Amino acid sequence: MRLVSYSHDNQRSWGAVTSSGMVIDLRTPLASSGGATLKQAIENGLIEQARTIAESAQPGGVRLEDVSLDPVIPDPGQILCIGLNYKDHLAETKFAKADHPTVFARYGRSQIGHRQPILRPVESDMLDYEGELAIVIGRRVRRASEVDALSAIAGYSCYNDASVRDFQRHTTQFHPGKNFPATGAFGPWLTTADEIPDPAALTIQTRLNGEVMQSATLDQLIFTIPELIAYCSIFTELLPGDVIVTGTPGDVGSARKPPVWMKAGDVVEVDIPGVGCLSNPVVDESTGPAA
Amino acid sequence: MRLVSYSHDNQRSWGAVTSSGMVIDLRTPLASSGGATLKQAIENGLIEQARTIAESAQPGGVRLEDVSLDPVIPDPGQILCIGLNYKDHLAETKFAKADHPTVFARYGRSQIGHRQPILRPVESDMLDYEGELAIVIGRRVRRASEVDALSAIAGYSCYNDASVRDFQRHTTQFHPGKNFPATGAFGPWLTTADEIPDPAALTIQTRLNGEVMQSATLDQLIFTIPELIAYCSIFTELLPGDVIVTGTPGDVGSARKPPVWMKAGDVVEVDIPGVGCLSNPVVDESTGPAA
Repeated sequence: MRLVSYSHDNQRSWGAVTSSGMVIDLRTPLASSGGATLKQAIENGLIEQARTIAESAQPGGVRLEDVSLDPVIPDPGQILCIGLNYKDHLAETKFAKADHPTVFARYGRSQIGHRQPILRPVESDMLDYEGELAIVIGRRVRRASEVDALSAIAGYSCYNDASVRDFQRHTTQFHPGKNFPATGAFGPWLTTADEIPDPAALTIQTRLNGEVMQSATLDQLIFTIPELIAYCSIFTELLPGDVIVTGTPGDVGSARKPPVWMKAGDVVEVDIPGVGCLSNPVVDESTGPAA
Repeated sequence: MRLVSYSHDNQRSWGAVTSSGMVIDLRTPLASSGGATLKQAIENGLIEQARTIAESAQPGGVRLEDVSLDPVIPDPGQILCIGLNYKDHLAETKFAKADHPTVFARYGRSQIGHRQPILRPVESDMLDYEGELAIVIGRRVRRASEVDALSAIAGYSCYNDASVRDFQRHTTQFHPGKNFPATGAFGPWLTTADEIPDPAALTIQTRLNGEVMQSATLDQLIFTIPELIAYCSIFTELLPGDVIVTGTPGDVGSARKPPVWMKAGDVVEVDIPGVGCLSNPVVDESTGPAA
């Protein structure tokens, strides 16, 4: 099942996307049971009920093209981003391999949904793409074993952890370069975990104006998805709706010779077949529409 | 005025602490105007109204000793922690001085209030104190000038950015060591900005079991409070209730010879005269009461 957070007729909602490209509203039937948002529905164990409602509502709904997609989870309690988690990307950054995952944070207010513009801030020309697989946590988990970890996942989505490289490199800590408004693209939807029996079998591609910039298989992750969940859940309790963004493959723009920076008019896509294809235009903050 | 978030009779509330040590409930009179929490009251510009209500309610209220204090802002939209912001601490860490503030994140779920126990996790013996001045943002601000920055502050509090040093050093990114549950102590209260005309004139002391471990003046900050607000508000829009934790002075436990680690039975205080004195016991997660 593919689940979206969206806005339609000036109202925020969430729903299921059918195979014929219609969005079935799930907020209306489930809000009173604790499912006013997708995050709440995950928290309150309403996803199977949502599936039944979505199946019985077909045909019906509004066309996907007629709604505005929000970030899959607009306000995660935590977004934990993993850095340096593909060998080729680690090599191009010249960082040493660590014995543990590299973890930093992105706050929810920096996020946008599918088709919403990534904003290049006036302070920098060094806006870079980072195509990544995102996982959304489905249940409360602390100190997960690697064996249990996959069962804690509600589903998968695409993420573009767009980075302002000069701000990322101002100090040792990446945070400033990872938190500019409208730089964390998350979508188009959540593909529920039952459809992805083995995330390591996925492939990922990042395209800039149609040209393939990054291409990898998820079995290339240095720290696997179960290892990431096990590690993160040592230092924090993971809660439903939390997001782990699993790292980007090699060939980011900043490592190319000459470097490739995203600029106004570009379109960047993160394509993970079986999960989704996230597409965002790039707009200059100074001249483009407000985020 | 001193404002607290607290729990009493199994209800969460917020209120003002009077000079005679009584807590005047402000949730009840202000919830219907958009002041159900301290953060909401700041957002909705209700602090002067709160002052009037608190003054007219005296004598009255419940004794401060009879309530359980929560973190000053239990659920900030952002907590931005500043690292390496005192010369003596920078020197002891052996990091190079950067041209910009070092910024990392702590999520709200890692926080505790005054007198609540700091938990030493079972995974580490390397739990360290970091006494710091915290500022709470009072209004929406992006790209603040240093001149305007002080006017964006709602008030000040004490913070113990307790750190699990081995996890902090697992990689280049500090995040894991700064986000264990019950390690971010924030309190006892918010002292409103009108009482602190010049934060650079403050002094700060961290005491462990009564012994002075850190002692500094706030004019020793490498990046001043206006500079921190100006810098952070470039890469993110600061919102009411956001917290900036301004950095810790030298003489942290991990830099001492031999190192000093916090352990069960310790009491750690962060004392900023004119702002407050935050005190927390240390408890082993394995044997102590649950957080």
